[in-house]
Amino acid sequence: MLAVRKVEPQYGVEVVEIDPPKPGADELLLRVRKAGICGSDRHLYEWDAWAELNFPTPVTLGHEIVGEFVSFGPGVENVSEGDLVAVESHVFDGTCRACRTGNAHVCENLRILGIDMNGGFASFVTVPGRLAWKVPDGIPLHRAALFEPLGNAVHATMRYDVSGQPLAVYGCGPMGLMAIAVARSIGANPIVASDISEYRRNLALAMGAHATVDASSESCDEELITALGSRPTRTLEMSGHPQAVQQALRLSANGGKVVLLGIPPTPVEISVADDVLFRGLDIYGVTGRLIWDTWYRTETFLLQHGEILDPMLTHTFSLNTFEDAMSTIMSGECGKILLDI
Amino acid sequence: MLAVRKVEPQYGVEVVEIDPPKPGADELLLRVRKAGICGSDRHLYEWDAWAELNFPTPVTLGHEIVGEFVSFGPGVENVSEGDLVAVESHVFDGTCRACRTGNAHVCENLRILGIDMNGGFASFVTVPGRLAWKVPDGIPLHRAALFEPLGNAVHATMRYDVSGQPLAVYGCGPMGLMAIAVARSIGANPIVASDISEYRRNLALAMGAHATVDASSESCDEELITALGSRPTRTLEMSGHPQAVQQALRLSANGGKVVLLGIPPTPVEISVADDVLFRGLDIYGVTGRLIWDTWYRTETFLLQHGEILDPMLTHTFSLNTFEDAMSTIMSGECGKILLDI
Amino acid sequence: MLAVRKVEPQYGVEVVEIDPPKPGADELLLRVRKAGICGSDRHLYEWDAWAELNFPTPVTLGHEIVGEFVSFGPGVENVSEGDLVAVESHVFDGTCRACRTGNAHVCENLRILGIDMNGGFASFVTVPGRLAWKVPDGIPLHRAALFEPLGNAVHATMRYDVSGQPLAVYGCGPMGLMAIAVARSIGANPIVASDISEYRRNLALAMGAHATVDASSESCDEELITALGSRPTRTLEMSGHPQAVQQALRLSANGGKVVLLGIPPTPVEISVADDVLFRGLDIYGVTGRLIWDTWYRTETFLLQHGEILDPMLTHTFSLNTFEDAMSTIMSGECGKILLDI
Amino acid sequence: MLAVRKVEPQYGVEVVEIDPPKPGADELLLRVRKAGICGSDRHLYEWDAWAELNFPTPVTLGHEIVGEFVSFGPGVENVSEGDLVAVESHVFDGTCRACRTGNAHVCENLRILGIDMNGGFASFVTVPGRLAWKVPDGIPLHRAALFEPLGNAVHATMRYDVSGQPLAVYGCGPMGLMAIAVARSIGANPIVASDISEYRRNLALAMGAHATVDASSESCDEELITALGSRPTRTLEMSGHPQAVQQALRLSANGGKVVLLGIPPTPVEISVADDVLFRGLDIYGVTGRLIWDTWYRTETFLLQHGEILDPMLTHTFSLNTFEDAMSTIMSGECGKILLDI
Repeated sequence: MLAVRKVEPQYGVEVVEIDPPKPGADELLLRVRKAGICGSDRHLYEWDAWAELNFPTPVTLGHEIVGEFVSFGPGVENVSEGDLVAVESHVFDGTCRACRTGNAHVCENLRILGIDMNGGFASFVTVPGRLAWKVPDGIPLHRAALFEPLGNAVHATMRYDVSGQPLAVYGCGPMGLMAIAVARSIGANPIVASDISEYRRNLALAMGAHATVDASSESCDEELITALGSRPTRTLEMSGHPQAVQQALRLSANGGKVVLLGIPPTPVEISVADDVLFRGLDIYGVTGRLIWDTWYRTETFLLQHGEILDPMLTHTFSLNTFEDAMSTIMSGECGKILLDI
Repeated sequence: MLAVRKVEPQYGVEVVEIDPPKPGADELLLRVRKAGICGSDRHLYEWDAWAELNFPTPVTLGHEIVGEFVSFGPGVENVSEGDLVAVESHVFDGTCRACRTGNAHVCENLRILGIDMNGGFASFVTVPGRLAWKVPDGIPLHRAALFEPLGNAVHATMRYDVSGQPLAVYGCGPMGLMAIAVARSIGANPIVASDISEYRRNLALAMGAHATVDASSESCDEELITALGSRPTRTLEMSGHPQAVQQALRLSANGGKVVLLGIPPTPVEISVADDVLFRGLDIYGVTGRLIWDTWYRTETFLLQHGEILDPMLTHTFSLNTFEDAMSTIMSGECGKILLDI
Repeated sequence: MLAVRKVEPQYGVEVVEIDPPKPGADELLLRVRKAGICGSDRHLYEWDAWAELNFPTPVTLGHEIVGEFVSFGPGVENVSEGDLVAVESHVFDGTCRACRTGNAHVCENLRILGIDMNGGFASFVTVPGRLAWKVPDGIPLHRAALFEPLGNAVHATMRYDVSGQPLAVYGCGPMGLMAIAVARSIGANPIVASDISEYRRNLALAMGAHATVDASSESCDEELITALGSRPTRTLEMSGHPQAVQQALRLSANGGKVVLLGIPPTPVEISVADDVLFRGLDIYGVTGRLIWDTWYRTETFLLQHGEILDPMLTHTFSLNTFEDAMSTIMSGECGKILLDI
Repeated sequence: MLAVRKVEPQYGVEVVEIDPPKPGADELLLRVRKAGICGSDRHLYEWDAWAELNFPTPVTLGHEIVGEFVSFGPGVENVSEGDLVAVESHVFDGTCRACRTGNAHVCENLRILGIDMNGGFASFVTVPGRLAWKVPDGIPLHRAALFEPLGNAVHATMRYDVSGQPLAVYGCGPMGLMAIAVARSIGANPIVASDISEYRRNLALAMGAHATVDASSESCDEELITALGSRPTRTLEMSGHPQAVQQALRLSANGGKVVLLGIPPTPVEISVADDVLFRGLDIYGVTGRLIWDTWYRTETFLLQHGEILDPMLTHTFSLNTFEDAMSTIMSGECGKILLDI
């Protein structure tokens, strides 16, 4: 079968033929149908310092996947032939204190599909059976491919009560765009989004932002507060830019609540006294999705509001044109990119 | 009357005779009986960069006070002659969104007694009537002087549910020591405290810490986790040392909850990705006390467990020997220092 | 001036001429513009057992009001001439433990406008200045009259996180209808409403309910669960019917959260073991509005979604035709009824 | 082996010889060492209306057990020979929405050991392997037998933040007594307990209650409030007496939080308007234990404070003297009763 692989610990990937995997005990074999490309896949492609430290090779990439159930090993019971299945990409052990107290998303022995084990940029993939989420009728395939990344956005957006609250969203990449759509659906009001790209700010408006701010403007602090009508009482940092993290804390209302999801590539200098203590902030760091609370909420969103997301699904490629997909991501002129497999 | 004043914008203070104040509308006149010296008073004394930016002169210092009610201006109704009164030092406006939604402690127009207005290192002080807390019978004067700073520790310690949780406390100055005593009284277990000073580590044990760690040890990370039996699920950072802030985040259990109270003098480099996001942390920045929720809890603690704090009340000075008090603070060989006025 | 008064402790009201009031210290004089009729006004009109126990006479009725600022007594500062003002009807003392810990809506010495003191079914009314909420531009008068009752619905609906949750709403009177509109705006999904009146079920659909159930149907339990697709994880009991309270608890999902707002006229037999304990329920009893957290959220809803409520504003009467308004309420064929004053 | 069995659907039990069980897939075989008798065992013994409806026969009783690991079927990995094991008695399916969103204790298909399947009043018992909790060194056997029921008390007591809050505890049977000990260890203050039995009120004082009230006194309402110094802001109803449930709601402070754990044998007439709505209460119904959050906290309590519970362990019997144990329970002159097996 065809697979997008990181074969050597260096820049780039190879699209190669390999043998399809076979499901072991407690595992499912899926025929992959669609897969999304994540920001972390770009880091792996470019082989930056973080990737070099954290990434074993060789491995097949891809952790945002939806596929059809093909067969399973002993011990798997919750799926039937023909089921469409989305996959929780965080392989938790289920036995550590984090897992046993509602925090499996930050399992102490967390492994990630497509990073620590072969992923789904391939015709077939095996996954632990307990990580399967049966996709209900009524969610078309291209939206079902969003379960995993949309779950991050749902997790972040619903962490604090944003209903009726002025909300700032930093970063209008796919994660920020999905967060805007979710926040709009649960009544955050107004929502002001910030990005340096006009292309992405327009997508933000399509997702339901009430206004946007050019993050490269010198007066972006004032513009954001003016557009919101006040400092934000709720904040979502979805970009990972160190300056955006600083801005997110600096502009928050006193007593505000700030969710951090974007992954900064370097440590960030934070004015803890002025921007955390004296503001009386609550801050929450997002990893993955609450298992399975977030999945129920994500499914409801896809069933009821899924069409809102279609404008951000800007491009589709095949495994064979993966290099084109990566070039498009690097251009910045795109929303979420899917692979049709 | 005698008062400890910052007269000029420079190092040091002056102990001078000034006219006693008169209460205006909605104000109380108090005869000050005891006052505690806060870490921020040291910053003001030393006139560091932060003080220079934030501190108007001339002003009488002192915001941790207990006094006897003497007289009041029109509009004050909730005290009677002879009442012993502790004072909330955060002068909130009561009309901003923060104040009107339960966050008066981070009022958007916050002013602080002894910083933005004359404080209580003096024989008499006037305070807004609504900031008075009547001290009940059963709390002796020297402990009643602790209401304000103890409230900070109660606020920090009770922010997250620490009962039955392994707790790390960074910093064994007065604030950390009070937090240890409070945490012990509400069942945090075990409690491990960290400081560079052996003197203060011994006080931490007297306050109820189950073990302590020398923060200057190269292996202090491992020692702390060993003493706790696991990474801490709850953390109180009470020192304000940038390295302790980093350590507090780095050592936390995944899904842990970290309270920051100590005020770092400089920005802190934080590994947001590894130490906040991938840990799935909740972080809370403490300013002052919840008004008045914290005060009820603080009063209960003083009534039921107040004697636990006596060993950390290591020294008492008079207004005339204020310089000696400040020297003692700078030596580090002390707990909380009170002025007897 | 004209006023709707309960003069004698008996059935009915009188519309009489009385002298306009004068504002005392800390009070506002308002020229009333619109006022809503509340379910409790009907209880007072009919002079049932509850009214007889709790209601002093004579008194002017009316606690859902919006008016223009006319003049004020000493001590009031937060309004200007010409301001349009909505009024928090719960006169809290501000000094009890409930008030001082974020629960002023259940003040231990609560008094209510139009019940314990003269209300706003009159040309003029005086109210404590601290209870005034300045109505912003952009909210037309007829919707501004909804601030007080809409606040109850916002308080109830936002008590628990309903976003993405299957929600049952019992009772489609004005309170239930407003709750449906609010719940829809914050992403409850699906929303199924229950009432015996077809007229009101149709209004429920206009407010955004996804489906309705006839509460008089013998199979209404099954119909509600079928329409929701599961037992509700969130429930709003807005009717006050004892059988609806029982049904709300009985049908809840295990681990569900149930808000009770409708006021049952008699005690309710509750199967505590089967319907509370073994379900692991959270239950919350609503009084009034969170002061002022609910008001900020209510204002945002009115600014952004207010037009959704227009279909439920079915009738308007004058003070002189108050008897007609009451007859219409008793017919059940109405939504919220306003008085144009 | 010897076993205490309900053989026929009628009053009483039989102590009989039966074959020991064999562990199936995913099951453990335990040699039972100690087992506690629960209030529900008495209901089963007496075969009241509730038992008749809910209880299949024949079955071996007993769900509060600690035993030694003997052998296991395929699929069990988390225990080793000689381990001492306590058992979560709630057999959850792990696949329903409740289980998958943190509410396994109210699993939609919940089965209970010793009720829906053979329990542990026997020399040996088999239990699903995932329900085993390894008992750490440092907890003696007689206290390890308390894990299950103590977990209920920990769940109830830690549901709301009781630290520094005036707490009322209704019912001083074993469950109320354990709740008092836990509440004291986490700083509830003061704690006032209510019961009709002087014997049990004395045990309540031994567990750490600051005062007790005779529930049979006509003035018990006033006495409880006087002893607390105010209405309770936190309440634990541990008795299951309908009048205590009513009293718990009626006496709560406005804005208070009430936990219901005692199982009333009949529906309870509740004044929803006066005692729930107008008080603005939060109410929580307890079933079992949070899996496994409560177990971590329970273990910490047993390690640090376990000796506090010894005075309430008043009697020990053998399987052969089970009838004597039941007579002692019916006398009311006892704390928790253990079987030594």
